[in-house]
Amino acid sequence: MARRDQTQQETAAPPLGIGMVGYAFMGAAHSQGWRTAGHVFDLPMRPVLAAICGRDRTAVEAAAGRHGWAAAETDWRALIARDDVQLVDICTPGDSHAEIAVAALEAGKHVLCEKPLANTVDEALAMTAAAGRAAALGRTAMVGFNYRRVPALAHARRLIADGRIGTLRHIRAAYLQDWLTDPASPLTWRLKKERAGSGALGDLGAHVVDLAQFLAGEPLVAVSAVSETFVRERPLPAGPSGGLGGGGAAGGTGAVTVDDAAVFTGRLASGALASFEVTRMAAGRKNALRLEINGERGSLAFDLERLNELSFHDHTEPAATAGFRRVLVTEPDHPYLEAWWPPGHTLGYEHTFVHQARDVIRTIAEGAPPVPSFADGLQVQRVLAAVEESAAKNSVLTPVPL
Amino acid sequence: MARRDQTQQETAAPPLGIGMVGYAFMGAAHSQGWRTAGHVFDLPMRPVLAAICGRDRTAVEAAAGRHGWAAAETDWRALIARDDVQLVDICTPGDSHAEIAVAALEAGKHVLCEKPLANTVDEALAMTAAAGRAAALGRTAMVGFNYRRVPALAHARRLIADGRIGTLRHIRAAYLQDWLTDPASPLTWRLKKERAGSGALGDLGAHVVDLAQFLAGEPLVAVSAVSETFVRERPLPAGPSGGLGGGGAAGGTGAVTVDDAAVFTGRLASGALASFEVTRMAAGRKNALRLEINGERGSLAFDLERLNELSFHDHTEPAATAGFRRVLVTEPDHPYLEAWWPPGHTLGYEHTFVHQARDVIRTIAEGAPPVPSFADGLQVQRVLAAVEESAAKNSVLTPVPL
Amino acid sequence: MARRDQTQQETAAPPLGIGMVGYAFMGAAHSQGWRTAGHVFDLPMRPVLAAICGRDRTAVEAAAGRHGWAAAETDWRALIARDDVQLVDICTPGDSHAEIAVAALEAGKHVLCEKPLANTVDEALAMTAAAGRAAALGRTAMVGFNYRRVPALAHARRLIADGRIGTLRHIRAAYLQDWLTDPASPLTWRLKKERAGSGALGDLGAHVVDLAQFLAGEPLVAVSAVSETFVRERPLPAGPSGGLGGGGAAGGTGAVTVDDAAVFTGRLASGALASFEVTRMAAGRKNALRLEINGERGSLAFDLERLNELSFHDHTEPAATAGFRRVLVTEPDHPYLEAWWPPGHTLGYEHTFVHQARDVIRTIAEGAPPVPSFADGLQVQRVLAAVEESAAKNSVLTPVPL
Amino acid sequence: MARRDQTQQETAAPPLGIGMVGYAFMGAAHSQGWRTAGHVFDLPMRPVLAAICGRDRTAVEAAAGRHGWAAAETDWRALIARDDVQLVDICTPGDSHAEIAVAALEAGKHVLCEKPLANTVDEALAMTAAAGRAAALGRTAMVGFNYRRVPALAHARRLIADGRIGTLRHIRAAYLQDWLTDPASPLTWRLKKERAGSGALGDLGAHVVDLAQFLAGEPLVAVSAVSETFVRERPLPAGPSGGLGGGGAAGGTGAVTVDDAAVFTGRLASGALASFEVTRMAAGRKNALRLEINGERGSLAFDLERLNELSFHDHTEPAATAGFRRVLVTEPDHPYLEAWWPPGHTLGYEHTFVHQARDVIRTIAEGAPPVPSFADGLQVQRVLAAVEESAAKNSVLTPVPL
Repeated sequence: MARRDQTQQETAAPPLGIGMVGYAFMGAAHSQGWRTAGHVFDLPMRPVLAAICGRDRTAVEAAAGRHGWAAAETDWRALIARDDVQLVDICTPGDSHAEIAVAALEAGKHVLCEKPLANTVDEALAMTAAAGRAAALGRTAMVGFNYRRVPALAHARRLIADGRIGTLRHIRAAYLQDWLTDPASPLTWRLKKERAGSGALGDLGAHVVDLAQFLAGEPLVAVSAVSETFVRERPLPAGPSGGLGGGGAAGGTGAVTVDDAAVFTGRLASGALASFEVTRMAAGRKNALRLEINGERGSLAFDLERLNELSFHDHTEPAATAGFRRVLVTEPDHPYLEAWWPPGHTLGYEHTFVHQARDVIRTIAEGAPPVPSFADGLQVQRVLAAVEESAAKNSVLTPVPL
Repeated sequence: MARRDQTQQETAAPPLGIGMVGYAFMGAAHSQGWRTAGHVFDLPMRPVLAAICGRDRTAVEAAAGRHGWAAAETDWRALIARDDVQLVDICTPGDSHAEIAVAALEAGKHVLCEKPLANTVDEALAMTAAAGRAAALGRTAMVGFNYRRVPALAHARRLIADGRIGTLRHIRAAYLQDWLTDPASPLTWRLKKERAGSGALGDLGAHVVDLAQFLAGEPLVAVSAVSETFVRERPLPAGPSGGLGGGGAAGGTGAVTVDDAAVFTGRLASGALASFEVTRMAAGRKNALRLEINGERGSLAFDLERLNELSFHDHTEPAATAGFRRVLVTEPDHPYLEAWWPPGHTLGYEHTFVHQARDVIRTIAEGAPPVPSFADGLQVQRVLAAVEESAAKNSVLTPVPL
Repeated sequence: MARRDQTQQETAAPPLGIGMVGYAFMGAAHSQGWRTAGHVFDLPMRPVLAAICGRDRTAVEAAAGRHGWAAAETDWRALIARDDVQLVDICTPGDSHAEIAVAALEAGKHVLCEKPLANTVDEALAMTAAAGRAAALGRTAMVGFNYRRVPALAHARRLIADGRIGTLRHIRAAYLQDWLTDPASPLTWRLKKERAGSGALGDLGAHVVDLAQFLAGEPLVAVSAVSETFVRERPLPAGPSGGLGGGGAAGGTGAVTVDDAAVFTGRLASGALASFEVTRMAAGRKNALRLEINGERGSLAFDLERLNELSFHDHTEPAATAGFRRVLVTEPDHPYLEAWWPPGHTLGYEHTFVHQARDVIRTIAEGAPPVPSFADGLQVQRVLAAVEESAAKNSVLTPVPL
Repeated sequence: MARRDQTQQETAAPPLGIGMVGYAFMGAAHSQGWRTAGHVFDLPMRPVLAAICGRDRTAVEAAAGRHGWAAAETDWRALIARDDVQLVDICTPGDSHAEIAVAALEAGKHVLCEKPLANTVDEALAMTAAAGRAAALGRTAMVGFNYRRVPALAHARRLIADGRIGTLRHIRAAYLQDWLTDPASPLTWRLKKERAGSGALGDLGAHVVDLAQFLAGEPLVAVSAVSETFVRERPLPAGPSGGLGGGGAAGGTGAVTVDDAAVFTGRLASGALASFEVTRMAAGRKNALRLEINGERGSLAFDLERLNELSFHDHTEPAATAGFRRVLVTEPDHPYLEAWWPPGHTLGYEHTFVHQARDVIRTIAEGAPPVPSFADGLQVQRVLAAVEESAAKNSVLTPVPL
């Protein structure tokens, strides 16, 4: 009987201790990524789920047990101070990103920070500056735009970079959800500006703005926007209100202080036109992140509700046999797929976090520039700020600073 | 052997003499509508294809033969003057709509005018005024927004009017074609402002603006726009240039003076948000007129490339069995379908013109208000003018006059 | 003012007088085909809707008026005898096809006969023999497998003939409808063996068997089948029962004597496997004629509910960009499309009859062999007979005679 | 700093030691299931990846490291003998299932056995008998029909059991793959009868037969079949031939001794008709396990390539708004979804193994009857044997023994 105390990989690759702040939706998803990446991909470092951090001791200990973390902390400064933590993974609401990230980087830790990078451009600037200083010391700072790790979108980027759709003409992007459709849906922290920064714009808009620029390989240079809060008062949630009960509430309701939806247009650096829509009130659309890009030689289309598929039209084909192809992005030579299942066996949402874990570990091990970097996150923040400015100024076309 | 000299319908219903100006794409489509409507629907008047008009005698006589018109004219004034013509059907480019329509109405004829109603708001105002005077004398003036006659869209309007999707939150509309994707595609009259008025905006935008307002049952009150001409010089076409060879041409090319594409956002009267995109450079999209409308109780979606289908989401269903339904709009109780084939037997593009013929004949016979009226066409023109103004003024949100 | 008494086409092409027997669903569809073909395609002969025939004088005269026929007859022998009829178009139930077709051919008329060619192989044999004799005298006999005229399917045949999908491996075909799903749906002539010959098998199976063999370019050589009548008694229809009230009825119901559904498998001459399913009890499927063909170099798929689309997979493409393409079959170089609308402007069900009218007229004018011929119709009949035999003999694999 | 040596769950739930035989595709998938289930679901026992077994020491140790197993064995008898193993998970080819499973059950272990349960009915009978004896001693034996754990299919079963589609009329099932399309694709153990038992039939047919019966809630009682081996000689693979080089090979090729494809029809106990097709030569279909079920009150449709979606048609809806709904099966009240992500965040192929791990652990802890049991696996085997018998006997309808 051959007893093994450690797996082969454990002996082969040095450990990378992870400390995660936050344990809600994103915490669960990131945990799955950290737990799984090393069992699927050949990694130069072995992720160790060292410690998880949250303010409520009972809750964070339960989360540690559930998600497989070796220890629990209630103070993120203590987490950062741990010797067994080399990478701090920030999964909290946007209002705490800057403080935690800067502190972690200054303590010599690598950082993975959930999107949006911050609630304001100023915060993002400070974080980017800290990332720059840390990079000089060999520390990696990456922002968690996980949808870049959807194989179909990574494949789309390759096709565009290879010139398969030619000069870009149009990008149209929408991120449609429906969980606020019902006016009786309760007020949560995501509907308060002081916590969330903005509404659909920061939550959903950050993703589609990042993806549009990632796919195009160029930035948005100007935007024009309209936004709206359709339901301005919502019932306070039952139970502890999390500080939401105060300002403006009367008779059990409270004010929504972020946008429900935003529509905006823009131009890319090359002159291509872009259109965007983000909303949480598109009844029946659960997670419809849709992208379509038209170029002089072809087009691509994608919908996150069918994340294993990429539609590709090759405009150089004879018209009689041309048309959008449904490419099932599960082939071994598709991005990330070399390590998964045979063709036709699909992946899901959480795999983006496995891929993100792979990518950040490789980036750290190779000392390579992080992609997407805090600077990329800052740039998205600038776009979102320009959107808000345009919406506030009668939709006037508003430049995005470089 | 029972000899019949006339069909039963011919004896039962009085004739309505049609005189059509123009015989290109729209002329062919309208001819099919006039020829077919009486054989499918029970009509109070029998359309007679009396005379067709075009400037080139050889070509117009060939068109008369091909399309089944009893006579040919080369001067639209002569067509209007014919005693056997009671309805003038205008299928010419937009720059001649106003002159012909006003003359026909003043001569006591009914008028059906292709969209866009005119190339300018001033022309549309004059036409609407003439329609008002003619209405007092029992004459009908209708604008040819044929897509209102797609059964799926007429059904969608019914569902919305019945409250099935509740308070509207979003309309997103796109009309995507790709026939100008290739920069070597030649310069035609459709690319010259003096003939076509505008580019994708007037051609495609007129349709989607009309449909968005028709479906919503309310007007757009403000718009913000960006437009673009991606390819500014194109080769002159072979053969007679149709007056296109002049200004700016050098070495066999000429200037494109209209937009290739426009993206715009807006607000409906009720506060719902709207987004629009029109382009002739979306590679692989042949006739993708797409509409999606989200309300508090449900959503609807449509794509003209699948014109027999309407997607409907009923948000009042339990979540476990809710989802967008693909309704095949071929049932006997769907609009226009009572007269066609059994369920599942589909219609095509040209049927919209059969339905239009039915509707204009019934409107004339009943003396009912025309829908859509010239006033409706004028209102669309005002939206398009506001779009152009906004695009020229840095996308600033521009009100649409009532 | 240029008065024209005849259209140019009328003078250019000699007339071909059509006499049609039957005026229900198929009569209406064929009428639309005859009325329209000459206005869309350049034809060597001009179809003239000379006379229509049915047993009920009032009804047939109404149909003549509605559908545009110059005369009405109540005896098909009188119709055949008319001098102004050169082609007899048979749109009656299957039990009268043989008698009418043979008489018409013997009277020197061309014949177009609706599918299925006959209710029995013996009838079909007699008809094919008559067609052979008539062919020697320059008469055309064609069977109305109209779905061969769907542009997407004609295009599919071209691709297969060109070797684009290579050696065939599989054909799977289904024709699913749902109008008999409700057990309370009434008993009609289509549910009586003596009139209809068989149920879903003859009505729907004839189409898919013909299409499978047409697309493959080779015959089925053996079949194995199961069939079923799920609802064996149905209420008698209100009103005149058309002779359905008799045998087996008790308390207002009558026996269904045909199949509701059949599933069968088979082999093509080349060894490819085939599977078929036909039913009128597939709830929610209105007219789902689906075909998929897999070959060594590619695959094709089609669904009649989306008749403008053909799915094509090119297996010689690199896997990373391969996938089923949605080809919108509306390009000028697609079959039949040279005469219709610009790309992306769709056709519908009835266009198959316009195309059929075009094809039969050209065949007559050119003296070419008819496709599909009565011999082709006979061969389909032999397959259906083999299916019935197999179903009756415990599904044993039953050869199809050559 | 709060040090935790064990997660909360570790202390709360007793361990269940897993010993897995086999470490290829299925081994990797099962490992992911065992590693993940306890981090997502509340489980009564905590799975511990105790030991993995394979014949090649180097390879199995590498697999242990990769997949997270604490120990490696090279003899499955040694694995069964381990005290830290309470459940034996059999992921080997079908020819060793019976021997391992019977030995494990007789040693007092729980067993999870990959499908197909065995290569022959006799083996399956012996296994079922062993399972019966073990059940009396409190041991669980389950067969790994993982697709029952696809949430959309589990939801479909619920809807059918609730009567939402009424009396069943039709089941049509296909499992289409394309990895043998190329005749130059090499000969592997899966193409040899002595290892794999059968070809597409056992590999793919076992899944669709099980699912059809699972969804219908009733067994197939008779089948009629045709099968084919299109490519009868294939090149031997490079490298160690695994015993494939022998019989019949000449010049580097060997005989394929299993089917490439099979099509079969059948009847369910209730009289509903069924049709099946399984193949590995459907070019462009990667993992197209498709099911459609039609009943008197509605229909359901599914395609594994879009495993998060279930199509549902409610035939009791008014026709004007009826149609197949695309239900995104990601709602909290869908099966298995209570523990995953918010609505619209999709799952993938491997989640079926996480769900299977959950279900087998709960079954063991509760002492509940296993679903699907070895008896269920035996019944599927009887269907497959009847299919082979029918195919060998000229497709004659062959009863499935109870």
